[in-house]
Amino acid sequence: MKPPLIVSIRNFYNLKAKSIMTKAVFYHAGCAVCVAAEQMVAEAIDSNKYNLEIVHFGEASERIAEAEEAGVKSVPALVLDGNTFHINYGASMEDVKKLVV
Amino acid sequence: MKPPLIVSIRNFYNLKAKSIMTKAVFYHAGCAVCVAAEQMVAEAIDSNKYNLEIVHFGEASERIAEAEEAGVKSVPALVLDGNTFHINYGASMEDVKKLVV
Repeated sequence: MKPPLIVSIRNFYNLKAKSIMTKAVFYHAGCAVCVAAEQMVAEAIDSNKYNLEIVHFGEASERIAEAEEAGVKSVPALVLDGNTFHINYGASMEDVKKLVV
Repeated sequence: MKPPLIVSIRNFYNLKAKSIMTKAVFYHAGCAVCVAAEQMVAEAIDSNKYNLEIVHFGEASERIAEAEEAGVKSVPALVLDGNTFHINYGASMEDVKKLVV
């Protein structure tokens, strides 16, 4: 007889969360439009569904290539599970590159 | 002696939800860009915090004035607690008005 499978409630929810969590990346460059959008995104995104990462190009210019590959043309932008959404308009990626690279 | 205050768990959560729920309105006009953004917004917004309403101007042209007052310049747009965020670019409000009014 196999032993019963015992999963604590905490582990169950962690496992469930890992299996359904979707990656969300919010790219910005610290501009006023970016900061307003960051507050909205951080507050509004369902943290039970999305694992949200905030990337500030001023502190992580090495992430620019990955953002451009995902189709980010301006900041702020939110990439949800590979789909890119530009939220308002702060600066073009060309301007971001001039400032931080 | 006052009777004890009895609140069922369901009522407690309903009361709690009502007190902290913030209004979110997603305005769109049925365009391809709008539909992609609508799916994202409906999926990603934390339904425990936001009471999300989807407004399609093609079906509710009487809501155009209220959207413009909130600062909506193009669709799709998300108004979160009075703050307007334009998500990508589908059509200007001028074009929307030409189509639906």
